[in-house]
Amino acid sequence: MTMDDLTSEEVTLILDTAESLAEVNQRRIKKVPTLRGRTIVNLFFEPSTRTRTSFEIAAKRLSADSINFTASASATAKGETLRDTARTLAAMSCDLVVVRHKYAGAPQMLAEVMTDCSVINGGDGIHQHPTQALLDLYTMRQSLGRLEGLRVGIVGDVCHSRVAGSLVPALRMMGATPVIIGPPTLMPARPDVLGAEVCYDLDEALPTLDVVYLLRVQFERATRMPFPSNREYAMLYGMNADRLAALPPHAIVMHPGPMNRGVEISADVADSPRSVILDQVESGVAVRMAAMYLLLGGAESGAAA
Amino acid sequence: MTMDDLTSEEVTLILDTAESLAEVNQRRIKKVPTLRGRTIVNLFFEPSTRTRTSFEIAAKRLSADSINFTASASATAKGETLRDTARTLAAMSCDLVVVRHKYAGAPQMLAEVMTDCSVINGGDGIHQHPTQALLDLYTMRQSLGRLEGLRVGIVGDVCHSRVAGSLVPALRMMGATPVIIGPPTLMPARPDVLGAEVCYDLDEALPTLDVVYLLRVQFERATRMPFPSNREYAMLYGMNADRLAALPPHAIVMHPGPMNRGVEISADVADSPRSVILDQVESGVAVRMAAMYLLLGGAESGAAA
Amino acid sequence: MTMDDLTSEEVTLILDTAESLAEVNQRRIKKVPTLRGRTIVNLFFEPSTRTRTSFEIAAKRLSADSINFTASASATAKGETLRDTARTLAAMSCDLVVVRHKYAGAPQMLAEVMTDCSVINGGDGIHQHPTQALLDLYTMRQSLGRLEGLRVGIVGDVCHSRVAGSLVPALRMMGATPVIIGPPTLMPARPDVLGAEVCYDLDEALPTLDVVYLLRVQFERATRMPFPSNREYAMLYGMNADRLAALPPHAIVMHPGPMNRGVEISADVADSPRSVILDQVESGVAVRMAAMYLLLGGAESGAAA
Repeated sequence: MTMDDLTSEEVTLILDTAESLAEVNQRRIKKVPTLRGRTIVNLFFEPSTRTRTSFEIAAKRLSADSINFTASASATAKGETLRDTARTLAAMSCDLVVVRHKYAGAPQMLAEVMTDCSVINGGDGIHQHPTQALLDLYTMRQSLGRLEGLRVGIVGDVCHSRVAGSLVPALRMMGATPVIIGPPTLMPARPDVLGAEVCYDLDEALPTLDVVYLLRVQFERATRMPFPSNREYAMLYGMNADRLAALPPHAIVMHPGPMNRGVEISADVADSPRSVILDQVESGVAVRMAAMYLLLGGAESGAAA
Repeated sequence: MTMDDLTSEEVTLILDTAESLAEVNQRRIKKVPTLRGRTIVNLFFEPSTRTRTSFEIAAKRLSADSINFTASASATAKGETLRDTARTLAAMSCDLVVVRHKYAGAPQMLAEVMTDCSVINGGDGIHQHPTQALLDLYTMRQSLGRLEGLRVGIVGDVCHSRVAGSLVPALRMMGATPVIIGPPTLMPARPDVLGAEVCYDLDEALPTLDVVYLLRVQFERATRMPFPSNREYAMLYGMNADRLAALPPHAIVMHPGPMNRGVEISADVADSPRSVILDQVESGVAVRMAAMYLLLGGAESGAAA
Repeated sequence: MTMDDLTSEEVTLILDTAESLAEVNQRRIKKVPTLRGRTIVNLFFEPSTRTRTSFEIAAKRLSADSINFTASASATAKGETLRDTARTLAAMSCDLVVVRHKYAGAPQMLAEVMTDCSVINGGDGIHQHPTQALLDLYTMRQSLGRLEGLRVGIVGDVCHSRVAGSLVPALRMMGATPVIIGPPTLMPARPDVLGAEVCYDLDEALPTLDVVYLLRVQFERATRMPFPSNREYAMLYGMNADRLAALPPHAIVMHPGPMNRGVEISADVADSPRSVILDQVESGVAVRMAAMYLLLGGAESGAAA
């Protein structure tokens, strides 16, 4: 699944379903029997405890059996192809595989190979991270009441971010305007193809935005950083109290996590009431529950609550 | 448990039980309450996500609580003896431990130490891998309707394969004829002791076989390979389309996985309708469910379905 | 939670609750629905399969959903602060986090940050390990019928042991007398502050003790051992058959595990009927069930059995 595979009606269905499932997460007994007896495998070829935990909690709250299949210890290390690993999981009668892989396109390939088994893309390389985009849309809709017409500034390393890779088309599909903001070195070669507005000066853009979405500076990916220093990055593109004041009063601040406090976001902004960063985490569980529920046809097997 | 501990009546009981439990895996709600409230620990001292996942899925489909106890992070690294690790698990009131260890005999040792706790051998060194042998027997019986009288060619590194170590005596017990096939360097020193027919020429054996069972070339075990190159291995002992044509029309191709496509098996054979390799994976869950069910006396506590 | 946060009444409540929950672990179906639909995360920044497994089994026997969040693969490796990791888990609507961290005070810090989410200290650095102290008290009370007035010799590296760090105040609170025993190099700088009796000669202390509690020699922590050799340690402070004979007839031998047989404890003592080391492991599950039950207000949501 990429965002391109979804229509705006389907996105709205996922967000509406997430809204009704979010209520489960507020209860004392956070569990519904919807996916009892279904097997969901987390097939993670890249470490991401945060994302994996979100999917695992989502699966368990729907009463599915959740299995973690980590790549380091897996047959892949013994030379098995990804295709054969996928077929093996399908043969064990798994119902759903959440896959995270460094190669763009790995999830699509799996989906073709696995019959009778759904696939969710948990992030592939620098390509897409669709459940992140969905939870971001969900959080914006919950905070601001709508998606249509919003101006969303996406700040930072747009070029290497799979978060941006999914969020930009998702915003466009839902009638919002993505504005990508960052130094020219971190911009895609052909930003016009993305269909986003481009801006090199954060301060100029701020007063026009409904949402400031800060991308993570990915120290662990880039061995040579494309800007001189963290301090310079913070000065030019980091969100801080002064810049927060330059935003319209209703505007919100988002970040996909994990944050580098003091680099792309200052501590006071991260902890301010304008920040909806923890709402994003909370939305993540609800949106992933919704994706699992809809993919496994939970509706047929009983009520969601 | 080694295959030698089982009688042919017990093997038949396991296969019959697996057949009735396999039906559960075809359902929408793949879960029976048989082992609810029982604790099953996967104690893996060697990485094998594939085998562990199969056991974990089997445990969860029987509603048991499944715990993964990985060795790298465990007390063993702090100098605890395997015996004490086992006693510790037993003291936590575990009902069943699935153990995989590089030392032959580790599972037997555990079984002696742990009272009130059953042990399943998930593979010990180059010695035995009994649930693999059982799932192979199950797959042959499902595909060919019987075990008695079958001629089963086991091709490759028989000498270092725990799969072969369990499968050869299992086939003999059930009235089938194992034929071990490979270069002399990969044959056991005294093949006559195994009670298997020996053959050094795959092409000569093919027309007489009901089953061709290809062993995995274990790059990760042998630092110096006992044959000149993968290409030469494939030429002499790899299964390919021409060799498939030389088999009797009813014969099937098996492999314990993970496969090295292009080495011991060509891609077209792996994906041919004559290959039952994915059936083996599917059978693995059912056979492991049967072993757990029978060891934990599931029958006493309620119906299997 | 440190032991200092608990009153003696609260400790007694935990031990009494553990006693009633211990019965569950003796049943065939070791499961009560008390914490169904609650999410418990094991957040382990130090490897300890033994402790993690005990918590995981405890959670599952209470029907909670248990999630393992391991640090090596986590966002912490990406520069996220512990505080943000904690807030992230809270935002996923976790009910309880069991944290093990090398920094003393990490659990307290988490508890301050996480609203609507309880925290159990699973061991922090060389500081505290309160559930270990509680299970030790439970085991003593079960074996000897009382805590008040017991003389408990704690032998070994008291200075670097978080087990001792929690056990000494816990014993004092419950009216028992801790006696710390070891070479001067392994004693705290100001033993009087601890409120324990101090003794440098194990043989002199033995006839006066109701309990001998042997600390583990932690090879993996100390790169340079503060005593000449394992053999010398065993000679001066190791428990062996001769020393066992010097104890009063009712006295018991304890060890937090994993044991170094032949160093701090000889094999015959470890396996003697006077050793309650496996009872400690068994108690661990019951005490952790009790802590989870009480923290999550299990009493309100239904009966414990």
